[in-house]
Amino acid sequence: MSQRKLRLGAFIMATGHHIAAWRHPGGQIDAGTNIDHYIALAQTAERGLFDQVFVADTPGLRFEGSDEAFSRQGRVSYFEPVTLWAALSAVTKHIGFVATASTTYEDPFLLARKFASLDHISKGRAAWNVVTTSAENVYGNFGQDKHPEPEVRYEKAQEFVDVVKGLWDSFEDDAFARDPASGVYFDPAKLHPLNHVGKHLKVAGPLNLERSPQGYPVIVQAGSSEPGKELAAATAEAIFTAWTSLAEAQAFYSDVKGRLAKYGRRPEQLLVLPGISPVVGRTQAEAEAKWAELQKLIHPSVGLNTLEPFWPGEDLSKWDLDAPPPYIPQPPLGRNSRAHVVLELARRDKLTVRQLYEYLAGARGHWVVVGTPEHIADQMQSWFENGAADGFNVMPPVLPESLDDFVDLVIPELQRRGLFRTAYEGTTLRENLGLERPANQFSVQARKAA
Amino acid sequence: MSQRKLRLGAFIMATGHHIAAWRHPGGQIDAGTNIDHYIALAQTAERGLFDQVFVADTPGLRFEGSDEAFSRQGRVSYFEPVTLWAALSAVTKHIGFVATASTTYEDPFLLARKFASLDHISKGRAAWNVVTTSAENVYGNFGQDKHPEPEVRYEKAQEFVDVVKGLWDSFEDDAFARDPASGVYFDPAKLHPLNHVGKHLKVAGPLNLERSPQGYPVIVQAGSSEPGKELAAATAEAIFTAWTSLAEAQAFYSDVKGRLAKYGRRPEQLLVLPGISPVVGRTQAEAEAKWAELQKLIHPSVGLNTLEPFWPGEDLSKWDLDAPPPYIPQPPLGRNSRAHVVLELARRDKLTVRQLYEYLAGARGHWVVVGTPEHIADQMQSWFENGAADGFNVMPPVLPESLDDFVDLVIPELQRRGLFRTAYEGTTLRENLGLERPANQFSVQARKAA
Repeated sequence: MSQRKLRLGAFIMATGHHIAAWRHPGGQIDAGTNIDHYIALAQTAERGLFDQVFVADTPGLRFEGSDEAFSRQGRVSYFEPVTLWAALSAVTKHIGFVATASTTYEDPFLLARKFASLDHISKGRAAWNVVTTSAENVYGNFGQDKHPEPEVRYEKAQEFVDVVKGLWDSFEDDAFARDPASGVYFDPAKLHPLNHVGKHLKVAGPLNLERSPQGYPVIVQAGSSEPGKELAAATAEAIFTAWTSLAEAQAFYSDVKGRLAKYGRRPEQLLVLPGISPVVGRTQAEAEAKWAELQKLIHPSVGLNTLEPFWPGEDLSKWDLDAPPPYIPQPPLGRNSRAHVVLELARRDKLTVRQLYEYLAGARGHWVVVGTPEHIADQMQSWFENGAADGFNVMPPVLPESLDDFVDLVIPELQRRGLFRTAYEGTTLRENLGLERPANQFSVQARKAA
Repeated sequence: MSQRKLRLGAFIMATGHHIAAWRHPGGQIDAGTNIDHYIALAQTAERGLFDQVFVADTPGLRFEGSDEAFSRQGRVSYFEPVTLWAALSAVTKHIGFVATASTTYEDPFLLARKFASLDHISKGRAAWNVVTTSAENVYGNFGQDKHPEPEVRYEKAQEFVDVVKGLWDSFEDDAFARDPASGVYFDPAKLHPLNHVGKHLKVAGPLNLERSPQGYPVIVQAGSSEPGKELAAATAEAIFTAWTSLAEAQAFYSDVKGRLAKYGRRPEQLLVLPGISPVVGRTQAEAEAKWAELQKLIHPSVGLNTLEPFWPGEDLSKWDLDAPPPYIPQPPLGRNSRAHVVLELARRDKLTVRQLYEYLAGARGHWVVVGTPEHIADQMQSWFENGAADGFNVMPPVLPESLDDFVDLVIPELQRRGLFRTAYEGTTLRENLGLERPANQFSVQARKAA
């Protein structure tokens, strides 16, 4: 019997997901601009038979807070994702590459072209994580005074994805004869300009690049907002998401899978991949010691900076770190539920200021699992077998160390349980993920018309 | 004495510069989308100690003519340059990478970021060929109904380059302490937003990427128009140009070098690199046979297509290819001098239709030198030593074959003459080209203010 297998991505943000990872001896201190570091990470992920590597991205430098806290941030200087993945594709053979790019601030023709190039260059291992971009300090880089409203961003995103797919289909798969004897290179009847004129975009085409090995790159989406889920249901083939409990993850899983039918899609055409940040030890105690060591590296000014939004107008630097906050404000109306969770923790559990910022800064809303390989595999298996996940986006707290740990210790445990592959199944990312190669829309139209 | 050395670039357009190269047995038939072909080319160029490889680029599919002629064009599907070079940088160590990108149709923040990424990823081997883009079938891909006028394009290009340089200087070179003990990663006082508001662009910055190994990529320019020469004099460090006689090349060389002083620049800060398309044989007869073989591969419909602009409204397909054209029109007023040259050749030398299109389609206005390694080296030496060139942009007619020929036969001859290096001098492209690493403009301002 062909057992359903976990899909695994390695979310390899520079020196790791923990806010203080760059200070850790297991981290790479200049990770964001160290190509050898990234080559090693991609090769480790490939050794671990991961489906793909992934980086999030924002076209701008974002920070809110004091220069004192800012100066201690490790994530201020890092490669642009598509150039990074193109380089890594030349020194790997199997791993897929998920690059984040914005439908609000990039150009559809240039985006279609660079992702199609990446799919050709990697021989079918490219994926695009479609984001609409909401971080501050971005719009000014593109001459704007503010972001478009979320509903406008998502409406444009849908049109943008359709345009890009149309450009990717400019040449039909069988357009190229390349016959030196007759001198015929290709069939112009199988080249299709797009001539798109829509609400947000006007793009003529065709793309000056033939269809790529995967037909087109795998489409990924990462938002969990209402319009984000709808965009994913309409167009995405994988969705990254963040939950810290099985129940929430199950609810999200059935929610998005349930939205597919109205777009004529089947549940297996969208893979749901929650994030998991694993802290692996050979014993539970070793794992907990590793986590405690990391948490201790959070500088107080960095920690307090993460608390500031919940105590607006307050100078937190005067507080005693090892006492509870002097007062707990009412969560502001209209804020996200995160403020409620944080302030409720402070109130109910009487956490000290340090405990509170360690909770916030260390996990940053993600699912941190601290324990032995068996414990981590148990957790993953439970989500995988109980309608919460088709696989995971693994977020190593410290890179390269935590990815090595995961590959050396957790992957073999998942394989022993029959939950994960022991060899790559295919040559393209789609083949490994079990996703179909999409038909060319113009070929489909031609067949229908015939 | 340290002898002045030739600078050599390999202009590796897909399957070669000859219009029929893709039909030649020495060409790679699917070159435009074959990454292994490009890896081999870059490694061959590196074996030949070339300074850099280069591709031209247009963000659009351009063709004018019949579907019959279009179907025989080999250049319709090819990689985007920056993704291509990023991949090749991972499998080479010394060669530089010149990528073409448009100031009219790209975004300055995204362009600054991808080129800075490429410079980091390649450890200091990136260059940007600044173009304003004049080809048809481009503007429609960006929602426009026509190109801006040339003077507007060049005015914007200058502002665009200044903005991109400003973004590349966002972090001063010594901004990063990265001290795990103190927890200080960088100095926010050495981070500089640009806050540019100009006639054509509004860009806040800063770039989310530190200064790259070369300070910034080498700036290249390739136009020979009046505003192109002025842009080159103001900002470029290398200029690609096309001349077919020593006298023309000398005039251009002294023209652009003479424009540098008014921008406070020295002649050696701008390298003039004319194109040369070498057809190498062990004997003159072998070289000429190679060229004739290539010319024979030009399909008549492709050849006639290149003549059509000179006989507007005429159906050339009915003409006898081996007789002179039935009539020679007056060159249209206001056309470039190319029409005059072509029609004068037809009139004076009584060329047949086939000879005429072979002349036009085979060389395409470039300097084709057919001969032995000694003959080709003689020609290059003559231009180099007589104020016409600081080096050359070598345009192999057929790839990979003609690049192999050049590296195996001509490079050793240039080395024997002491005209070319026998080992790379530095680790970055700037070091190999003898170009200075630019100072950070904000550091310079700070020093002046102090």
